[in-house]
Amino acid sequence: MNRHPKITLVGAGPGDTDLISLKGLKTLATADVVLYDALVNEEILDYAPAHALRIFVGKRANHHTFSQQEINHMMVELAKTNGHVVRLKGGDPFVFGRGGEELDYAAENDIPTTVVPGISSAIALAGLQGVPLTYRGISESFWVITGATTAGVISKDIYTAAQTDATVVVLMGLNKLSDIARIYQEAGRGNLPVAVIQNGSLPDEKTALGTIDSIVEEAQARQIGAPAVIILGDVVAKHAQYRIKQEQEEAIAV
Amino acid sequence: MNRHPKITLVGAGPGDTDLISLKGLKTLATADVVLYDALVNEEILDYAPAHALRIFVGKRANHHTFSQQEINHMMVELAKTNGHVVRLKGGDPFVFGRGGEELDYAAENDIPTTVVPGISSAIALAGLQGVPLTYRGISESFWVITGATTAGVISKDIYTAAQTDATVVVLMGLNKLSDIARIYQEAGRGNLPVAVIQNGSLPDEKTALGTIDSIVEEAQARQIGAPAVIILGDVVAKHAQYRIKQEQEEAIAV
Repeated sequence: MNRHPKITLVGAGPGDTDLISLKGLKTLATADVVLYDALVNEEILDYAPAHALRIFVGKRANHHTFSQQEINHMMVELAKTNGHVVRLKGGDPFVFGRGGEELDYAAENDIPTTVVPGISSAIALAGLQGVPLTYRGISESFWVITGATTAGVISKDIYTAAQTDATVVVLMGLNKLSDIARIYQEAGRGNLPVAVIQNGSLPDEKTALGTIDSIVEEAQARQIGAPAVIILGDVVAKHAQYRIKQEQEEAIAV
Repeated sequence: MNRHPKITLVGAGPGDTDLISLKGLKTLATADVVLYDALVNEEILDYAPAHALRIFVGKRANHHTFSQQEINHMMVELAKTNGHVVRLKGGDPFVFGRGGEELDYAAENDIPTTVVPGISSAIALAGLQGVPLTYRGISESFWVITGATTAGVISKDIYTAAQTDATVVVLMGLNKLSDIARIYQEAGRGNLPVAVIQNGSLPDEKTALGTIDSIVEEAQARQIGAPAVIILGDVVAKHAQYRIKQEQEEAIAV
């Protein structure tokens, strides 16, 4: 074979296959190889040509099939031997997707790269449930923070965020939910509305709604598991179910 | 006519027509009315059926064709008379798009609503130029802030953001660029890399790259105009042109 090596990072969106962009689909249709992650809906792979290699490089049951270094290496070697490698990533490639490291590795090996952004679950999963991340008079910003820092500890950004009016979205932070709640409690924010959404945009989507003081219990009661996004901010009170729940609780209190 | 009134908020993406989602296109194909904003690429309207009314409700030359209240009212009345109203908004409907106010108005008038998220320019425009908003060891969060607050003053979130390692993205803030630079300078961040991108993802895209200390001059030199996004953070140094520029400046300094 004598193909031009090329790598395209493509964001597959938050889960629902119809939330990939038209450009993402057109790019997939020209793939010789697809390297895809665990958070990618496998139905999207049907858009790649029949001859394209499809290689799963994600994490299953907390176990990485390949290290990041191995993924980088495969990506570059397969581009040299097979041509167009599509690196298909959940959400957007650059929202905690390590897409930057992949671009750097490709550049070091002189392989040309392109990026097709995706709909990030950080923004979309709240929106799909009618929760606007920003709302005039409520929140004039939103801050997206990883729950899984390199060092394994809670990001110091969460301590700062708890002091602001920003809507805060935490990705990959479900196992730190009680720590996050404690940080907000120490900042006197016990009444702040919170939502936790698992498998957002998919048929098995589950949502827990509560306040900082109640969310750990609510998430446990609904058996929310990973992957989940956590949304903290007064805008969460815009959720239709949140309002109904609040009215019920007020009715009981009376 | 006797149609079921319905409103769908659809995010059109950052500009390139191919960056709308498949779900957005499918939704447009069922529209009886499309109300669209200035930041929407009009080529996307071709996906709506021939019979659908297409109504521009955006801002041109700093002049709003319709107030938000008028848009809300049109949206609801046209749903009652014509059926399915698609409210097509640039980027994502809830990233400073006032989509929340539109959902609230629809709910008050008992019109069912759905949301189709979009690729936000806040995330995508950096990514399309190879700038990852997050990068292990550089930034573990990104903070998206409006430059156009309700009160017309700089958001207090920008003062806080200047004290953190978060990558900061400011939308609708070009006319406040020198104020933003001053706030970062006062925080001792004069060397922080900054990018300003106008018409991102479109053929007439323009980019200015610099540091906090130089960005106002760089943006003027390149005649950057609105709409533009401002990206502040060490990840901007990952931009291929930024590295070349830096090497040239270092060569001159020697």
